[in-house]
Amino acid sequence: MSNAKLAKEFEKIVGAGGVLHTESDLHSYSYDSAVLNPAVPSLVIKPTTTAQLGPVTRLCNEHGLPMTVRGAGTNLSGGTIPHPGGVVVLTNGLNKILEINEEDLYAVVEPGVVTAQFAAEVAKRGLFYPPDPGSQAVSTLGGNVAENAGGLRGLKYGVTKDYVMGIDFFDVNGDLIKSGSRTVKCVTGYNLGGLMVASEGTLGVFSNIIFKLVPPPKASKAMMAVFDDIDKASETVAAIIANHIVPCTLELLDHVSIKYVEAFTKAGLPTEAQAILLIEVDGHPAEVADDAEKVVNICNKIGATSVHAAETAEERESLWFARRNALPALARARPTTVLEDATVPRSQIPAMIRGVNKIAEKYNIAIGTFGHAGDGNLHPTILCDKRDKEEFHRVEEAVNEIFEVALSLKGTLSGEHGIGMAKSKWMVKETSQATLDYSLRMKRAIDPKGILNPGKIIEVS
Amino acid sequence: MSNAKLAKEFEKIVGAGGVLHTESDLHSYSYDSAVLNPAVPSLVIKPTTTAQLGPVTRLCNEHGLPMTVRGAGTNLSGGTIPHPGGVVVLTNGLNKILEINEEDLYAVVEPGVVTAQFAAEVAKRGLFYPPDPGSQAVSTLGGNVAENAGGLRGLKYGVTKDYVMGIDFFDVNGDLIKSGSRTVKCVTGYNLGGLMVASEGTLGVFSNIIFKLVPPPKASKAMMAVFDDIDKASETVAAIIANHIVPCTLELLDHVSIKYVEAFTKAGLPTEAQAILLIEVDGHPAEVADDAEKVVNICNKIGATSVHAAETAEERESLWFARRNALPALARARPTTVLEDATVPRSQIPAMIRGVNKIAEKYNIAIGTFGHAGDGNLHPTILCDKRDKEEFHRVEEAVNEIFEVALSLKGTLSGEHGIGMAKSKWMVKETSQATLDYSLRMKRAIDPKGILNPGKIIEVS
Repeated sequence: MSNAKLAKEFEKIVGAGGVLHTESDLHSYSYDSAVLNPAVPSLVIKPTTTAQLGPVTRLCNEHGLPMTVRGAGTNLSGGTIPHPGGVVVLTNGLNKILEINEEDLYAVVEPGVVTAQFAAEVAKRGLFYPPDPGSQAVSTLGGNVAENAGGLRGLKYGVTKDYVMGIDFFDVNGDLIKSGSRTVKCVTGYNLGGLMVASEGTLGVFSNIIFKLVPPPKASKAMMAVFDDIDKASETVAAIIANHIVPCTLELLDHVSIKYVEAFTKAGLPTEAQAILLIEVDGHPAEVADDAEKVVNICNKIGATSVHAAETAEERESLWFARRNALPALARARPTTVLEDATVPRSQIPAMIRGVNKIAEKYNIAIGTFGHAGDGNLHPTILCDKRDKEEFHRVEEAVNEIFEVALSLKGTLSGEHGIGMAKSKWMVKETSQATLDYSLRMKRAIDPKGILNPGKIIEVS
Repeated sequence: MSNAKLAKEFEKIVGAGGVLHTESDLHSYSYDSAVLNPAVPSLVIKPTTTAQLGPVTRLCNEHGLPMTVRGAGTNLSGGTIPHPGGVVVLTNGLNKILEINEEDLYAVVEPGVVTAQFAAEVAKRGLFYPPDPGSQAVSTLGGNVAENAGGLRGLKYGVTKDYVMGIDFFDVNGDLIKSGSRTVKCVTGYNLGGLMVASEGTLGVFSNIIFKLVPPPKASKAMMAVFDDIDKASETVAAIIANHIVPCTLELLDHVSIKYVEAFTKAGLPTEAQAILLIEVDGHPAEVADDAEKVVNICNKIGATSVHAAETAEERESLWFARRNALPALARARPTTVLEDATVPRSQIPAMIRGVNKIAEKYNIAIGTFGHAGDGNLHPTILCDKRDKEEFHRVEEAVNEIFEVALSLKGTLSGEHGIGMAKSKWMVKETSQATLDYSLRMKRAIDPKGILNPGKIIEVS
C-alpha cells in the first residue's frame, strides 16, 4: 500500500490531525538521546485516546509495518529510534492520570504522563512516587516502564519495576491484554506486567499502567562529603551500606565531573576535590538524625577532607541541582557525549572506577564519572567528537573495555539505560546464546511479523 | 520407551539412587496441599546437583514426558500435582546456599533451600530476608518464586517477587538461561527472572536464584486489638494505612477463627470477640514508638474493646504463634479445609468480609476468615467434608461467588496461592480471552511439546 493510502487508513483511526508526514515531522522523530545514527520513519501517528492504540497496532501488523512507540524520546540506548520507513506512535497525547487512590496507595495512568508531573500530583495528595530518572522533567511513565528507568533514589526505594502493579497493553492483533491488579498481592496468571518492564516496546503497546505509591518520608537530610582521593570516596560508599545504613540517595562525582558541573552551575562545589559524595538519608526524624550522624562519622573515619550537611531547604536544593546537572554540564565540553551505564555490585565500585580510569588513560580519552554509587550504577561519560573518526574509534574500543571490566566484576552491561540498539551486540557476553534464543522464541510467538520496535534488545542475525 | 528403559536413562544422569519408582514413592508425590484429586507419576527423579537438571529436562523433552518440579509440595492450588504418568523432579537435594554477600546485600541459592532455614542463615549474618509464607518452615525458595509466595510481612516488605534479582534456569532443551544480575539495577535483556515469578514451573526449571537482602529493622512492637464488631476491625485496617502508617504485619482473625485457634493453641485469645487484629510495627525505635502510639489511638477511636501491646519477646511470640496456627486450627474442625485466597484493594476489606459472610449464610456453610488484612489478602477458609457431595457442591458454588465478589471489588482471584489447577477455569473472568491467548502463544513457543508442568495456570481446551 502506498504511504498516502496508509496515512488515510491511520486517519480513520486517529483523525486527520493525528497523522504527521511532513519532512520536518519525520525528521523530528528520527532519533532519540542516544549517540546513534537517525532513521527516518514513513509516518508519525499521534493517538488522542488509548483505545486508538489497539486499531493502530492492528493496522501496523496487517501491513507488516514496523512500529516504534515514543514518549519523550529521552532514551539513551536507541530504543526509540524507529525502523527506517516504519511508523512512530507518539504517546504524548495520552497523558491522563486516571486515578490516584489515596486509601489503597496506587495510581492508574496513561503511558504518556510525564514522570515529574505525575510525582507532583501524587505529592499533592500527600503520597510519594519515588522513581526519579534523570530525564524526569520530560520523560513519560510508559517509557520509564519500557526501559525500567532508575534514578537517584534506587538504593532505598528501588526502580520503576518495583512500582508496577499491573499493565493493560495491546498485542499485535490490537487486543487488550490485562495483567496485574489494583491489589498489592496478585498471582493471577503469568507476570506479564513484569515481562513488559524493560521490554523496550518489543512485546506490547501499553494502554494503562497501575503504579504502587508509598507514604512519603517524614524527614530527610542531605550531605556533601569531599575527598582528595577517589578510592576513599568509593570505600566510604561500601562502608555506609556495610553499616546497614540505606540512604535514599548516595551519589558520586569524580574530579572531571565536579569541574564541569561547577563551571556550569556555580553551586559552590570544591573544584580541587578528587571526588565528592552527595548523600541523603530520609525517614523518621530520629532515624534521619541517627543515620546522618553515622554517615558523617564514617566519612570522617575514612578520610573525607570535609563533610557538610545542608541546613536549609535551599542548600539541599543546590546540592541536588548540581548533581542533576552533571550530564548537561559534561555534555557542553565536547560535541559528543557517550554516557555509559555499566553497573557492578556496589562493593566493586572502587575496582570499577580504577578500571575506568585505566581505560581513559590507555585510549587517551576524557571520561567524567558520576552516578548512583550506592547502586553500583556509575555513568562514565566520554567526552569526544563523533566526527573525528580516529578518536571515535578509540572511544568505541574504550566502551568495549568498560563492559569487559564490569562483567569481570560480576556486573551488567546496563543498569538503567536499556539495551536498545546500542548494546544488543554485547548481550551474549553477559547472558548466553541460549538466553537470546529463548528470548527470540518468545518474541517471535508474541510478534510473528516482528512489527513491535524491531532491532531492539536482540540483534537478529 | 518403556518405563524401565526411561528409568535407566534417568539413572545415567542422576545415579541409581536418584530414580524412585516404587508404588509408595509414586503415591507420595501424587498430591500437594490443595483439595484436588491426586495424579500418580510414572517416575520420581531426585537430582543431587543443579547441573543434572539440564539433562533431566532435555530427556523429558525428547520423550515428550510431562515434568513437574516439586519442592516441599506445600502448594495450595495444585501447582505440584503431576500430570498422570509424568515425571516428578524433586529439588530437596538441591539445597545449598551458594553465597550470602554481606557487603552487596544479596544471596545466591539453589532452588531446594528451605525458606525458614535461609532466613535464619541470613539473620545470622545480621541481614534480613522478609518473605515469610505460612509454610516457610518446610517450603522451598524455588517453590516460593514459582508461586510468588507472600506471607505476613507483605504489607511493608512486599512478596517474593520483590526480592528476586536474577534467576538462572534451564529451558526445555536443557540449556541454561541467564537473567538478572548481582547488581541492584539491571536492564540487560528481557526481565526473564520476573517472568519466572509466579510461572508455576511452566516456563523453565530453576537452577540458581539471586535474592536481594535488606538490613533488619532495629526495633518492633506487636499489638493485639480486640473488636466486638468485624466492621470496626476492618475499618481500623483502612484507617491505619490512611494515616500513612505501614505496619510490617496487619493480620485479622474473625470470630470463627479465634475460637478454633484458641482451642488449639491456648494462646489466651478472647473467644468472645468478633474479630482481632494482630499488628506489628517495626523500624527505628523512635518510629516504632510513634507508630505504635498512633495505632493504639486509631484502634481506640474506632472502637476496639481493648488494645494490648506485647511487652516481652515471649508475649510477642505467643501472638504470632496464634496467628501462624490459624490454618492448622481450622483444619482440625472438619475433614476438608478449602482455603481461599481472593484478594481486594485494602479499602474494600469491609465489603469483602460482608460478602463472604453473606455467602456463608446463603450456602449454609462454615467459613472462618483470617489473613493479611493490610494487603487486602484474606483467607476465607471453608470447613467441610469433601465426601459429602451435596455439601461440597454448595462449597464449590460458594467459592465461585467469593471470586465474583472479589472481582466486583476490583480484586483478584489469587493474592498469593497461585492459579495452578484449582483456579485456571476462572482466569478468563479476571483477565480476557486475549490475555490467555497471549500467554499460551508465549508458553507454546517456549515449551512446544508442553512438557513443563502441563495443565497449570492456563486450561488448554
